[in-house]
Amino acid sequence: MIRIAIVGMGSVGRGVADIVGKKDLGIVITAVADSRSGRIDPNGLDIPALLAQKKKTGKCGESGRSALDIIQNAEYDLLVEVSPTNALSGEPAITHIRAALARKKHVVTSNKGPIALAFEELQNLAERNGVSLRYEATVAGAIPIMHSLEHGLAGNEILALYGVLNGTCNYILTRMAAEGLTYEQALLEARELGYAEADSTYDVKGIDAAIKLVILANTIWGNRVKLSDVACTGIDLLTAESLKLAEAEGCTIRLIAEAIPRKNLLRVSPRILEKTHPLVVDGTLNALTLETDMAKEITLIGRGAGSVEAASAIIGDILFISSSHVKGA
Amino acid sequence: MIRIAIVGMGSVGRGVADIVGKKDLGIVITAVADSRSGRIDPNGLDIPALLAQKKKTGKCGESGRSALDIIQNAEYDLLVEVSPTNALSGEPAITHIRAALARKKHVVTSNKGPIALAFEELQNLAERNGVSLRYEATVAGAIPIMHSLEHGLAGNEILALYGVLNGTCNYILTRMAAEGLTYEQALLEARELGYAEADSTYDVKGIDAAIKLVILANTIWGNRVKLSDVACTGIDLLTAESLKLAEAEGCTIRLIAEAIPRKNLLRVSPRILEKTHPLVVDGTLNALTLETDMAKEITLIGRGAGSVEAASAIIGDILFISSSHVKGA
Repeated sequence: MIRIAIVGMGSVGRGVADIVGKKDLGIVITAVADSRSGRIDPNGLDIPALLAQKKKTGKCGESGRSALDIIQNAEYDLLVEVSPTNALSGEPAITHIRAALARKKHVVTSNKGPIALAFEELQNLAERNGVSLRYEATVAGAIPIMHSLEHGLAGNEILALYGVLNGTCNYILTRMAAEGLTYEQALLEARELGYAEADSTYDVKGIDAAIKLVILANTIWGNRVKLSDVACTGIDLLTAESLKLAEAEGCTIRLIAEAIPRKNLLRVSPRILEKTHPLVVDGTLNALTLETDMAKEITLIGRGAGSVEAASAIIGDILFISSSHVKGA
Repeated sequence: MIRIAIVGMGSVGRGVADIVGKKDLGIVITAVADSRSGRIDPNGLDIPALLAQKKKTGKCGESGRSALDIIQNAEYDLLVEVSPTNALSGEPAITHIRAALARKKHVVTSNKGPIALAFEELQNLAERNGVSLRYEATVAGAIPIMHSLEHGLAGNEILALYGVLNGTCNYILTRMAAEGLTYEQALLEARELGYAEADSTYDVKGIDAAIKLVILANTIWGNRVKLSDVACTGIDLLTAESLKLAEAEGCTIRLIAEAIPRKNLLRVSPRILEKTHPLVVDGTLNALTLETDMAKEITLIGRGAGSVEAASAIIGDILFISSSHVKGA
């Protein structure tokens, strides 16, 4: 049995709690916090009651308990850090993760900011304290890319990686190609369906994809790259005409994030691909192709967003840490 | 440092030895055997000399040493069982694996027979003796399907699985569709390129795909299915005409292995798919789609055959066992 604290009670945090309550996974929740309240029960919280209260009152516990207070004082083995966090500043997640690791607690997060901005510091802190920091959910949602890199492809040299890492852009490009919509029309449709936020700059300019590329590059090559190292072009200037031209050649356009260390290349940009190319996935799907020395090309396709999909990745990380611990016990 | 014995010095065994010799992976080879000879060195064999001797003489060591003798007497931590084995009888691999597990040695194999035919017995023996039996290389070559199931998708219920699991059939179907070849013409071409064996029955009748489906089903659901439980139709009766008809509808035909437990369905059969379907991969590629409750659909695509690709999967298994051991030490 592993005891977890969940900080952040948005859709992902509630999704994790819901799954832990419904599945017999050997996980118990001993603490939760949102931005306004917190709750601790060393014997395990009543999850249906917790979710009902959150839904009714917007709070998960007593007012006046801060997330940091919960992280620093509750009894738990592993922090699930899923608080609403600015991906460009990494806060408050960086502070939360640092505090948990300092207490020798494992951390699993879906927040990209801390991993893109402070990976080396946090990873070193985790190693020094003999705990794990895992972040499968930060890139490509439910696709088990980190586990594949760490275990399935262990021993392989990763020569290059190409990915469709932003579902919003992929949805817009899919609709522009399928219906001849303009960028503005497709973006509007994406907003109406909840696939794009009111301020979509972060997605359509390629920044979100670039942040994920930084996380992948640092994970694979440990080469300390930063967001400013990525040459980034978004999809916001693409015309319906350019998609029609691609279409006429049996091709289409996708926003591709690519990293090729031997060429010193880190780039996010719209690329013309044959329609049968494995990275040409439709709608909000994500896809990654890894070029390796032994396994050659491996492509993974799946859902890049969604609270249950993110919870799936988080649960995978929790169970991996839990089973590693049982072995180590 | 983990000490391995390699039994079987065909292309996969030599591929593993070559990689262990060239990469600094913390693996040392202390014993090898082929069908006619064997060699032991507790300090680690000289790999370039070993491969040179095998190439020159066809033997890897002293005549008269049997594989079983090596398995039972050499000092090693993990057996790599890659001997030429009949997939329908599982021998001699089953005997080899049983002997190694009985000595409390871990086993990694690329041989499908033992896993399809004797999985439960061998898995129980491994568990009783506190060692691991891993077989990533048995299904879909270099695609990290077993690691994805075990770790990346841990906590997910797998609702269904669909796969293109036989590269020979996929090559033939790709060529029939692309060039309008008849089945016989495409098969001949596959033979000339080394993608099909002289006796291709095992591949084209869907038996190879069915065996892999049995391995996957037993791994995922532990439901003790056998080859005879799979409803199996091959590609050998497909006409060029049927592929043309599919083509006219924007579709094509692929040999799909599928398992859907809630429908009690285990089937290998040619299926019509839209050309943009993720399982429509070209040439000798393999592909799998998993339908899960949380991650939803996850598709993995990669090379299903090749000695280096198989070696990649085997090395991944060795390193996983090695790292689990370090944690447990």
